[in-house]
Amino acid sequence: MKIKQILLAARPKGLPVANNFETVDAILPELEEGEVMVKPLYFSVDPYMRGRMNDARSYIPPFQVGEPIESGGVAEVTHSKSTQFKTGDKVMSSGPRPFLPWATAAIFPAAHLRKIDDSIPLTYYLGLLGVPGLTAYFGLVDIGKPKAGETVVVSGAAGAVGIVVGQIARILGCRAVGIAGGAEKVRLLTDTFNFDAAIDYKGNHNMEAAIAAACPNGVDIYFDNVGGDISDAVIKHLNFFARVPLCGQIALYNSIEIPVGPRIQPIMVTRSILMQGFIIGNYASRFGEGFKQLSEWVKEGKIKYTETVEEGFDQLPAALLGLFSGRNSGKMVVKV
Amino acid sequence: MKIKQILLAARPKGLPVANNFETVDAILPELEEGEVMVKPLYFSVDPYMRGRMNDARSYIPPFQVGEPIESGGVAEVTHSKSTQFKTGDKVMSSGPRPFLPWATAAIFPAAHLRKIDDSIPLTYYLGLLGVPGLTAYFGLVDIGKPKAGETVVVSGAAGAVGIVVGQIARILGCRAVGIAGGAEKVRLLTDTFNFDAAIDYKGNHNMEAAIAAACPNGVDIYFDNVGGDISDAVIKHLNFFARVPLCGQIALYNSIEIPVGPRIQPIMVTRSILMQGFIIGNYASRFGEGFKQLSEWVKEGKIKYTETVEEGFDQLPAALLGLFSGRNSGKMVVKV
Repeated sequence: MKIKQILLAARPKGLPVANNFETVDAILPELEEGEVMVKPLYFSVDPYMRGRMNDARSYIPPFQVGEPIESGGVAEVTHSKSTQFKTGDKVMSSGPRPFLPWATAAIFPAAHLRKIDDSIPLTYYLGLLGVPGLTAYFGLVDIGKPKAGETVVVSGAAGAVGIVVGQIARILGCRAVGIAGGAEKVRLLTDTFNFDAAIDYKGNHNMEAAIAAACPNGVDIYFDNVGGDISDAVIKHLNFFARVPLCGQIALYNSIEIPVGPRIQPIMVTRSILMQGFIIGNYASRFGEGFKQLSEWVKEGKIKYTETVEEGFDQLPAALLGLFSGRNSGKMVVKV
Repeated sequence: MKIKQILLAARPKGLPVANNFETVDAILPELEEGEVMVKPLYFSVDPYMRGRMNDARSYIPPFQVGEPIESGGVAEVTHSKSTQFKTGDKVMSSGPRPFLPWATAAIFPAAHLRKIDDSIPLTYYLGLLGVPGLTAYFGLVDIGKPKAGETVVVSGAAGAVGIVVGQIARILGCRAVGIAGGAEKVRLLTDTFNFDAAIDYKGNHNMEAAIAAACPNGVDIYFDNVGGDISDAVIKHLNFFARVPLCGQIALYNSIEIPVGPRIQPIMVTRSILMQGFIIGNYASRFGEGFKQLSEWVKEGKIKYTETVEEGFDQLPAALLGLFSGRNSGKMVVKV
């Protein structure tokens, strides 16, 4: 069967551009016994994917030049030579690499797919109940260890992870302060997602003063999604015994040189600060716990969610690039 | 009674110099009921004291200009108007600030002194069984969480804390690699203190290659006493899930501007690294445990110790300044 694929055409230097991707025609082989053919319905695009475009040691192998990009996704079964799946089933990849290739159709061994409950909006599996929601949950609860009355600051607050971090902080009795870019996102945080305060880093030329005003008792937990100058400003306001779950550094992902900035170790010593990098895979054995807790909060109406949905298979590269210019509010997904 | 005191004459900018100190005559008042007069025997000089010379928020209040410097010390009771102490008793301060003023004699309320057992060398209370030994123990064991077979790198390895860190690492079945300045210190680490390997940062123009050679399986724990360029080189070799107890940043203590260096957050995210600043006061409730374990290891001959002893009350400022040029091997104390 003839399909379309989107390949990594060349590794980017710095910010990725359209030319780093190439759309090509390809042929899917005949389905063999025990295999299932799926048609992707939604793809997730995520900041961590920038790292996979480099040829560098990290927690997931890099994309290969000339091979399809892959990302999280939800698909529908179109042909099945397995007794476990039938046409119309909604599925996700549960293989050694839990991704779908950027293609209009793909073949998987049945053992590498899992069926999902389609009474829940399918995109939630990519967001609130998927990697971003679990990332917010474990980073905040396990590393941040929030105590009622503490102040939690989250950067990239209007992103897929950030909006969940702030809402969990509130559920646990903390003051939630979000940092995001632009007046519209800031309004979304306080009006829709119930943050106690939100700071527009694009509109504030004095971030330090803005943080001081929003955090009169200092910062006990800084959930860092962005890194760079924004984090420099927050770090100065960390309290003694503050915790910093390091989730992402999107401000730095496109750096060509090793970025430099103020050294943070001196303040970490004088204030007994803990900083811990993590990826969600570290918590794989506890996904059930996170999924259960998040689902409960959703059913109780305590957590809301927002998504930016782009449309069209051809829009996948543009949607990924859009993450780095802050085009999304909440989780960015592409309906294909 | 007429005594001598050493005051902070002016706050240093950058590296402290002799002019920042002033020796003056002073008069001690008459001893009152419940008070004890002591004559200091040994003073400790420690890198953290540089921080107290600044007028900055930290975990101990700053020294005041025109007031005596103070530091850890062991003293002998010369006059007592308390039933708890008699002339000749060896004591340490256990007051709200556990320090002795830099003076040839001082008066304390009896409640602010504790008697020490003088069958152990008195200087051990300032080193192996004092703050440096406890710092090594809790930083390595509680934050580093060493597992047998792992590689532990310690910077400032020939210092009062470092030599204990390396020896505890060996006791716990780890590979111990020390970084120190100069061929003599490096030899001391491997020959006397049994480190598996030691790196002379003054003799190595390619620290990264030296670390790679000394740590063929990468670095699992980096006990950081120094910060700066040396730490930059070690951090590149940290393994996934590495732990970094941040104990001191002596390379940066004399900085006037906020020091700048490579940002460490990106590598901390991709390798799930934990970094935690601490001061020994955080473990005050567990000092008994640390003291007991260290004493046992000393009695079993598993930990050795070395000291640099300077002589003379007038030499206190020079001894403190000497820490920043690496004049000491092991704990630096001044016999007065």
